[in-house]
Amino acid sequence: MDRNNRIKRTPMGRAVSELRGTIDRRTFLARGAAVAGVAASAGLAPGANAQGLAGQPWERVYGAPLNGYGQPSRFEQPVVRHFLRPYGDLAPGSGAALVPIEKLEGIITPSGLHNDRSHSGTPDIDPKEHQLLLHGLVARPLRFSMDALWSYPMITRIYFVECSGNSLRNLAPQPVQLPAGAIHGNMACSEWTGIPLRVLLEEAGLRPEAKWLLAEGADSSHMSRSIPIEKALDDTIIALFQNGERLRPEQGYPVRLLLPGWEGNMSVKWLRRIKATDEPTHTKDETSKYTDLQPDGRALQFTFEMGVKSVISKPSSTMKLPRTGIYEISGLAWSGAGRIRRVEVSTDGGVTWADAALTGEERPKAFVRFRFPWEWTGKEAVLQSRATDEKGQVQPARKAWLALYSPGNLYHNNSIVSWSVGTDGSVKNVYV
Amino acid sequence: MDRNNRIKRTPMGRAVSELRGTIDRRTFLARGAAVAGVAASAGLAPGANAQGLAGQPWERVYGAPLNGYGQPSRFEQPVVRHFLRPYGDLAPGSGAALVPIEKLEGIITPSGLHNDRSHSGTPDIDPKEHQLLLHGLVARPLRFSMDALWSYPMITRIYFVECSGNSLRNLAPQPVQLPAGAIHGNMACSEWTGIPLRVLLEEAGLRPEAKWLLAEGADSSHMSRSIPIEKALDDTIIALFQNGERLRPEQGYPVRLLLPGWEGNMSVKWLRRIKATDEPTHTKDETSKYTDLQPDGRALQFTFEMGVKSVISKPSSTMKLPRTGIYEISGLAWSGAGRIRRVEVSTDGGVTWADAALTGEERPKAFVRFRFPWEWTGKEAVLQSRATDEKGQVQPARKAWLALYSPGNLYHNNSIVSWSVGTDGSVKNVYV
Repeated sequence: MDRNNRIKRTPMGRAVSELRGTIDRRTFLARGAAVAGVAASAGLAPGANAQGLAGQPWERVYGAPLNGYGQPSRFEQPVVRHFLRPYGDLAPGSGAALVPIEKLEGIITPSGLHNDRSHSGTPDIDPKEHQLLLHGLVARPLRFSMDALWSYPMITRIYFVECSGNSLRNLAPQPVQLPAGAIHGNMACSEWTGIPLRVLLEEAGLRPEAKWLLAEGADSSHMSRSIPIEKALDDTIIALFQNGERLRPEQGYPVRLLLPGWEGNMSVKWLRRIKATDEPTHTKDETSKYTDLQPDGRALQFTFEMGVKSVISKPSSTMKLPRTGIYEISGLAWSGAGRIRRVEVSTDGGVTWADAALTGEERPKAFVRFRFPWEWTGKEAVLQSRATDEKGQVQPARKAWLALYSPGNLYHNNSIVSWSVGTDGSVKNVYV
Repeated sequence: MDRNNRIKRTPMGRAVSELRGTIDRRTFLARGAAVAGVAASAGLAPGANAQGLAGQPWERVYGAPLNGYGQPSRFEQPVVRHFLRPYGDLAPGSGAALVPIEKLEGIITPSGLHNDRSHSGTPDIDPKEHQLLLHGLVARPLRFSMDALWSYPMITRIYFVECSGNSLRNLAPQPVQLPAGAIHGNMACSEWTGIPLRVLLEEAGLRPEAKWLLAEGADSSHMSRSIPIEKALDDTIIALFQNGERLRPEQGYPVRLLLPGWEGNMSVKWLRRIKATDEPTHTKDETSKYTDLQPDGRALQFTFEMGVKSVISKPSSTMKLPRTGIYEISGLAWSGAGRIRRVEVSTDGGVTWADAALTGEERPKAFVRFRFPWEWTGKEAVLQSRATDEKGQVQPARKAWLALYSPGNLYHNNSIVSWSVGTDGSVKNVYV
């Protein structure tokens, strides 16, 4: 539920400063609407009625039949994922498809637009033939058909998944001018349903010397990661359903791991086996990739948890504000450590901050939608958001974050994102 | 979050009665898994490893390229909506497409499978041409383009939508043998994002004499309903987004009303106008339909709120249990009056009941997923669920519900659903 929007006294623009101090959300909603409405909607003569409405073509013809599986409107076809394909057409399934967060709203990412990080494309898996093997340091190795998994007790949770390489495009020397999702959309949030991994581990009889798991995918790259046993016994899910239906192929159909709050690549898709081990396996995927280069040239390995982070999606880069007036600034916040406690918004490049209203902050390791009313008076502005999680971790400024890593590092960029608004209303990606 | 599963002492089967009294969910999960696992998974020789895995064809070829908008696996193509088309091919867009709840999990209904009740098919609306008119007893009639609506402050909520005619197939003289969704799937639950209706009403300047609204759709039947002003000023949303993306055409693209907890048909799709009035309009849709026939032959009008209800989706009619052993009984519960407080499950046709574990019960007017472990010993059983909401309303037994209405009534059937399990494991729809 939205908390009341506790706006503090701040020199952020007339709408805020005129009202002063604490105001309630409803007052602000109504006020915001009134200002936007004057500019946005044409008044009708009093007494105007339905006869004054032009009958549109679709009101005069019988509509389309019922259908088995719906799709977005043909007018929404441009709403598609952004591609990040480092090898181009040579390896069209290697890279990432990013969520167009600038076109979306709410917390749930539609499954058709969920981010997809793949190393050798999406395998076409027949669920009747696919099996999951559980072996290694267990009393009783087990092999599960997908039908057998269906019979197990399940849980349902809303969790985000973020690629550890999300926002790497914002490490370029100059800020790229791309939509927000093409920069920061290598993350998504879905409702996942599946079997707690600990249930299967208990059935197999985990041996005391088992301290790690190896998880391996059935894609042709056999993407593999080592997972500490504590996480496996905590909140890890063998996920079978995503947003109510079976997983989509790009998200691991028919079965994937789901490690809430940890690097997305560890939530191994197309899961074919889990092997209990006494040490990490040091797979190709966790030595050649997914390590964090430090300023001294060494690389940190196994930095599992994703940091506290937020991004404004509305408005965002490449957009243009059509007029001065009241806007709602809106975006997403999340933390691998748990719940989001606070999101602050600045419209002056970080000089002053005020609290945004939050939706969904009761859920750990899930997206939170934040909203903040803002009046754009036509002057230059720099919009930023800063998230704080329940552990007290605060999203770092860009410069502070950069100081922690070598310039060659690609991962775990959770620094504050800045969008500038020009006097012509154009919104640009900037480094502040 | 799941509450601990407070199973009470009950003669429901060995798994429950052996454990006696209060047990925690985790114990039951592990226990359930152990029993299911023995039957479901083939043991491997100790020391089995990856070399023992057959390499599947999809592990040996490079996978499919990244794509802009994902779809379900080709192996999931049979998962489609069930049709209820009273006029057949004469009016293929009139009727309902029902959610295949027997194939789904969790709380969110995927947008492609959301239920669709349409009176004259789905209009193909160009959002650049569509407008929303707000007029009648207001100080200032307003007309909104879709672009103008985009600028307004929004809220995000998860709510169910249920057709008041849901479960009408269970009013047939003999129980139909159809999948659960074909009987009870005229309802769905999504995350909705949009503008509180009160914001637009305040902008237009609602006059004191305005007590009702007329809401009218832009489909060729101009589906229309009267709405009390109290509901419009409470939690009603002008919805633009569904599960993160713009509304699907069958759910009202580009804009619909969303009246949480009330008859689905009142959440007028393809919304073209709202007119403030002093009395209800008594439209064709609320006089010729959507009234509840009473035993004395009179019809109740304006029974807006949907009753407290639940249905077991797993297992459910037309399924067959493949073996004796532990199963998870799982299903959905909801109430138009607010939150679900309790779901009880019976496996003996209502003689004894025990509490199920709940997920999502913190959200009012949204689906709750309930789960209940059950051991099927091979004997006949009758599975039922019974929901109670925060107002203390309890889902009625079938006979008690039938006594309230004329046999000709089609609406508001929230009575308890019963599935029988035969000695051969076959699950059937029965009246108890």
